[in-house]
Amino acid sequence: MKAILVIADGMADRPLKELEGRTPLEAAVKPTMNRIAEKGMCGIVDPISPGTPPGSDTATLAFLGYSPMEVYSGRGALEAVGSGVEVLPGDVAFRCNFASVDKDLTVLDRRAGRISNEDASRLTRSLQRIKLKKSFDASFMFKNTVQHRATLIIRGPKLSTAVSDSDPEENGKGVLEIKPLDGRPESVHTAAIVSELMSEFQRVLAEHPVNKERARRKQSPANFVLCRGAGTIPNITPLPELYNIESACIAAVSLIKGVCKVAGMDLVNVKGATGTPQTDYMAKAKATVQALKTHDFVLLHVKATDVASHDGNARLKMDIIGKIDGMLNYVLKNIDLSATHLALTADHTTSCATRNHEGDPVPIAVCGPYVRRDSVREYSERTCAEGGLNRIRGIDLMRILMNFLGRTKKFGS
Amino acid sequence: MKAILVIADGMADRPLKELEGRTPLEAAVKPTMNRIAEKGMCGIVDPISPGTPPGSDTATLAFLGYSPMEVYSGRGALEAVGSGVEVLPGDVAFRCNFASVDKDLTVLDRRAGRISNEDASRLTRSLQRIKLKKSFDASFMFKNTVQHRATLIIRGPKLSTAVSDSDPEENGKGVLEIKPLDGRPESVHTAAIVSELMSEFQRVLAEHPVNKERARRKQSPANFVLCRGAGTIPNITPLPELYNIESACIAAVSLIKGVCKVAGMDLVNVKGATGTPQTDYMAKAKATVQALKTHDFVLLHVKATDVASHDGNARLKMDIIGKIDGMLNYVLKNIDLSATHLALTADHTTSCATRNHEGDPVPIAVCGPYVRRDSVREYSERTCAEGGLNRIRGIDLMRILMNFLGRTKKFGS
Repeated sequence: MKAILVIADGMADRPLKELEGRTPLEAAVKPTMNRIAEKGMCGIVDPISPGTPPGSDTATLAFLGYSPMEVYSGRGALEAVGSGVEVLPGDVAFRCNFASVDKDLTVLDRRAGRISNEDASRLTRSLQRIKLKKSFDASFMFKNTVQHRATLIIRGPKLSTAVSDSDPEENGKGVLEIKPLDGRPESVHTAAIVSELMSEFQRVLAEHPVNKERARRKQSPANFVLCRGAGTIPNITPLPELYNIESACIAAVSLIKGVCKVAGMDLVNVKGATGTPQTDYMAKAKATVQALKTHDFVLLHVKATDVASHDGNARLKMDIIGKIDGMLNYVLKNIDLSATHLALTADHTTSCATRNHEGDPVPIAVCGPYVRRDSVREYSERTCAEGGLNRIRGIDLMRILMNFLGRTKKFGS
Repeated sequence: MKAILVIADGMADRPLKELEGRTPLEAAVKPTMNRIAEKGMCGIVDPISPGTPPGSDTATLAFLGYSPMEVYSGRGALEAVGSGVEVLPGDVAFRCNFASVDKDLTVLDRRAGRISNEDASRLTRSLQRIKLKKSFDASFMFKNTVQHRATLIIRGPKLSTAVSDSDPEENGKGVLEIKPLDGRPESVHTAAIVSELMSEFQRVLAEHPVNKERARRKQSPANFVLCRGAGTIPNITPLPELYNIESACIAAVSLIKGVCKVAGMDLVNVKGATGTPQTDYMAKAKATVQALKTHDFVLLHVKATDVASHDGNARLKMDIIGKIDGMLNYVLKNIDLSATHLALTADHTTSCATRNHEGDPVPIAVCGPYVRRDSVREYSERTCAEGGLNRIRGIDLMRILMNFLGRTKKFGS
């Protein structure tokens, strides 16, 4: 027995005026999703708890069976892991941006004119050569990812995540001083390391040939590195150890890849998977079918629904739901339905009206040979609420699926 | 966006033989409640947990989003706060009764012949002049409220709520000695202060002119003060700080007012609101509409349904439900429905058969622009159980409402 968990990011929504009180999911054409609901058992899920707007990271941790309230330790380290940087327990990770600042350290452009990957890579190679003072007893890794985005890892004994951001998160504001957020020596120490590093980065970037070229091309200089969101990797037992399974993750965005990597899942890179509405849906569907041949559990994540919701674009969201439906149709046609459970859900509600993550529950449908089919025949926020799964928490799902796979231990005798 | 939470005290019930197996809520005429159910999403709520009979104080704490299991610290302090007495963190509060005792300290009447407010106030003024011995390093406040009821507050460093009651809670029994309930010095100290105070009260009351007048009028003397329920105020973060909202409470009974005051809500005094079946329902409805103009969140509490239930009077309960329905009709007609969510529930089941608070879940309906309407068309214990909210806990409700108001923080990113 195997299982697939499909998470459509922010697919759940609230009733929208422009859709005459329907949600995009209710209004979309989604015959495959409806078939999953009809063949399966349905319900609603609070990814974290009722009324709490989840992040994609905390919700995915919960869906993989981890208590986010206990293990979540910030986005920085997860995103770093997801972008291929090694982060060890104890390392402190930051999310960074190449930025343009003036001589008073006022931020002119938080994205340094959305600097190209090539320019960012050349700058990064120079920054990587900087040496930290020996007295710090620490090392650092710096890696650019996409455009202006980068990751900074500090490694050493006795570090702390209790340090403030330098990123003011808005153009026109001054760069913030990195300060310890509590009085512990570790926090003071970590803040000193990062401050020193930021000055060294600034020194190297000021005279860098890439910035001189950018000036000639009338492009914003990448003369500062802003950092934010100090975090560590969650201290969790990986899935293979918990359930004795091989598991794989098919996702485009670093944050989800990071969560899955930390959970001990294999990351499958899919050409054409971009995390945007233009992603190659069928390539991801094919990768899912392939991954299931060699793994017991596959998580398939699609970001596009959330992107459309944050833009308040209900019509685009409906189109994307249609494409995800096609993707699911391919998956269902190419797997052994007598030996696979498939769960379809969203990691949170993203309202096209508020354009934010919201705390409303999300629909879920699980089909497969062991489920108790209910009378729900349509996959949507409202119809699933009438299903046999009733209302569960995100953290409950993994154990339900692993039990279908015969991988949960009896508690008691 | 704003929200109203309507709590009808003990409105939920069990099926009654005299109503051919219906509950009073099922048998009552309640077109407005049904409209709220029809336009909204419905469910059932365990105010505390399944099968646990809640008090009105613990249930209201839960509905305001606080974990009663963690923060509840007795009724005494809450009722004192609700009756207008200032209670500070660390103060120990008792609920007191003026009582009649004989010379052997056997209680003849726990309510001193339901002494008048006037007599109780005159006695209270004399008791307030008593000075505690300096060695106690403590002060006290004593205040009568309604008839024989009063509140005692002990203030000082190192006090404890682990002291026993002097009130035997039954006529014909002896006054109990106030003892420390554990071996901590604070508990021994607190018990000594209260014991000393009780003797002083007894001494002053014995010779008091009011009691001489009462003897001439053949009225029971108020020659003793019984105390019970040592408590402190719950250590909670108030709602304005948690959600950045202005909130108001419209309630007649001290206990609910106390909970709401401690939660940082403004108390609205309504002329004619009595906490009895004869309360001025429309005055409370009007006060709710007014309060909503200046506040983001209004709690409207009606006690009468509980009073009728404790008397086992199902017909009266049905009448009261009808009056609450009229009240809701006024509210709905006078607020902006496109910018308000309204939740209607009960704080617990009070059974007209057992005449007690019971642990059955209570119905809930929430209407407003963001809710996912379900197919429930009638507001009752059974019909709401089929609704889209499924079954939630009391503690979940506040976050659901605050999420509709855009006042909950995302957890994760």
